[in-house]
Amino acid sequence: MTDRIREFLEARRRAGRDTGPCLVVDLDIVRDNYQSFARALPDTRVFYAVKANPAPEVLALLARLGSCFDTASVVEIEQTLAAGATPDRISFGNTIKKERDIARAYALGVRLFAVDCEAEVEKIARAAPGARVFCRILCDGDGAEWPLSRKFGCAPQMAPRVLEHAHRLGLTAYGVSFHVGSQQRDPGMWDGALKSAAEIFNDLAERGIQLQMVNLGGGFPTKYLKNVPVVKAYGQAIFRALSKHFGNRIPETIIEPGRGMVGNAGVIEAEVVLVSRKSDDDPVRWVYLDIGKFNGLAETTDEMIRYPIRTEADGDATAPCVLAGPSCDSIDVLYEKDPYLLPIGLEIGSKVLIEGTGAYTTTYSSVGFNGFPPLESFVI
Amino acid sequence: MTDRIREFLEARRRAGRDTGPCLVVDLDIVRDNYQSFARALPDTRVFYAVKANPAPEVLALLARLGSCFDTASVVEIEQTLAAGATPDRISFGNTIKKERDIARAYALGVRLFAVDCEAEVEKIARAAPGARVFCRILCDGDGAEWPLSRKFGCAPQMAPRVLEHAHRLGLTAYGVSFHVGSQQRDPGMWDGALKSAAEIFNDLAERGIQLQMVNLGGGFPTKYLKNVPVVKAYGQAIFRALSKHFGNRIPETIIEPGRGMVGNAGVIEAEVVLVSRKSDDDPVRWVYLDIGKFNGLAETTDEMIRYPIRTEADGDATAPCVLAGPSCDSIDVLYEKDPYLLPIGLEIGSKVLIEGTGAYTTTYSSVGFNGFPPLESFVI
Repeated sequence: MTDRIREFLEARRRAGRDTGPCLVVDLDIVRDNYQSFARALPDTRVFYAVKANPAPEVLALLARLGSCFDTASVVEIEQTLAAGATPDRISFGNTIKKERDIARAYALGVRLFAVDCEAEVEKIARAAPGARVFCRILCDGDGAEWPLSRKFGCAPQMAPRVLEHAHRLGLTAYGVSFHVGSQQRDPGMWDGALKSAAEIFNDLAERGIQLQMVNLGGGFPTKYLKNVPVVKAYGQAIFRALSKHFGNRIPETIIEPGRGMVGNAGVIEAEVVLVSRKSDDDPVRWVYLDIGKFNGLAETTDEMIRYPIRTEADGDATAPCVLAGPSCDSIDVLYEKDPYLLPIGLEIGSKVLIEGTGAYTTTYSSVGFNGFPPLESFVI
Repeated sequence: MTDRIREFLEARRRAGRDTGPCLVVDLDIVRDNYQSFARALPDTRVFYAVKANPAPEVLALLARLGSCFDTASVVEIEQTLAAGATPDRISFGNTIKKERDIARAYALGVRLFAVDCEAEVEKIARAAPGARVFCRILCDGDGAEWPLSRKFGCAPQMAPRVLEHAHRLGLTAYGVSFHVGSQQRDPGMWDGALKSAAEIFNDLAERGIQLQMVNLGGGFPTKYLKNVPVVKAYGQAIFRALSKHFGNRIPETIIEPGRGMVGNAGVIEAEVVLVSRKSDDDPVRWVYLDIGKFNGLAETTDEMIRYPIRTEADGDATAPCVLAGPSCDSIDVLYEKDPYLLPIGLEIGSKVLIEGTGAYTTTYSSVGFNGFPPLESFVI
């Protein structure tokens, strides 16, 4: 929470425009975060993960600061170009792309693409001749609050064949990428993945192909309820692992922070719609907000992300609450398995501030499930 | 799948407009479904659950057929009125409502509201004086493919006090509602809930308050992969339970079908973007579609709803596949715990038809997560 956000929300209330939930993102925090990454990893290029928050103001600020961009679709590429980035600063980082979208990206000037199998290499060879490709490998997400599935990446043993295939088809076999798991709280987790990456570099070198780049992925955490290591600790751990596995031939590196870049820059203001109990002897109160899984808080699925919540009654005694959204959908419950402690003074109409919501909220909103509008967003 | 949908999709392909996934809803099926409900439960009024699919054409057809409407928000009330329904045919069925939204609904002419606690009764007494209220009670969702949480409803023992409170505040204590769980495949499940409802009627009668209505809720299934009982079987089971618990004083009843009204009327056409394996010895193929959890198939969460999928290669030998969506989000996997058998001839660029997708798809779509547009929808 910053003074600028507080003042913005106060002005919105005074104007009587506080009729639904809204996200406010403070660009000063985004700037600080960018600079922290740049300082912590001075030899690494930053590719902001646009999907975390593609607000035009965020993209424009990062473009001015010199950031590069990791994009998931042609629409995100277009948004990034519109914000002032040049195509040489854009990676099409989704391993799952339609061939016509690869062609469109290539026409827009994009030359860097992710792959994780030979079929995707073949699409790129046809639609983006001569482009650079990096192969994503699987790595286990131990230590992450939001462990990744096996959806992206191939087994490390398969990567050399994929990259050699790219080389044979006239592409530049450029490097290796991995993702250690979102909201990764253990800076040591990059070590194992970098060991695999170095082995792939050696394997390809034996085949006469010199890889150049390691994409260290995202996973950099933002602070929710628990403390997380500072960015500097990640930089140090990554540098140690790079030195250990690559010796004095450290490759070019890039990182793809999303949550770590914008998560703590945003605060959602929401309203308590109802407080009730299910029976006279119900030990928990049910607190229903005007925001839920379908209009901004999708990352509460399985109660993975636990946002800090501030209320007007903070300081009162607290009691366990089940927290739920406003929709007529039974899965629209935010925290139930592990009830949330909230002040007993919290009542219908109270405002609550949900912190750390700058990433993965606005674009996750449904177009209008139950007739509720998407999350309103302001960037200041 | 109907001839009309097949012809529509063929025309779309010929016109070269098949560049992204789309849903096609056949109004003839919606009409058939409405008439099946009306025939199976001749003394019961149908309140279509607008949230299942609020397409204007669907609402207009149902309004013409004489349906009433269960709505979750002021926007849904406005959509329903715009489609030609009069406000006396609208229920504001969400138990979680802002007081200003209740006032707005009342100003629009709505006089029927759901509650499940005294605080909500008080809002309605202030904002919708004299309105009818029904109290939702908890009932366990055994037998449902998508069991409901405890989010909606109070313990049956608490309902008489809630309704008496409404009566004291000048509202009409009108009845009781419950929901036996979505995609409920056991018609016998209404029996226990009706027993509770009858007890509440008796309790209120002893307090001098005559309830009039039982809202039997939704839960009527649509056919996915498994067969489901026909609507007539539900009508018979419900009539038996009503007679058993209410004797010869059967109350007014309403039902709120959503999935059962539109689920089987819709088919999504999607495209295979990538087919790959994660390693040389991977026993399953990964099949990535251009539709996933964030642009239409949110109900695959926890693999609850398993849609029938038709392909151009049907008839080929099949093999187990993990099915996933196109986004850079690791949770965007549709079926993995229980892999889906799909033809081995399925390849990149193949079209697939996902059946039973008329309900809970379009409005669940995100506004643009990863830059992917919301699900396109056509009603024919």
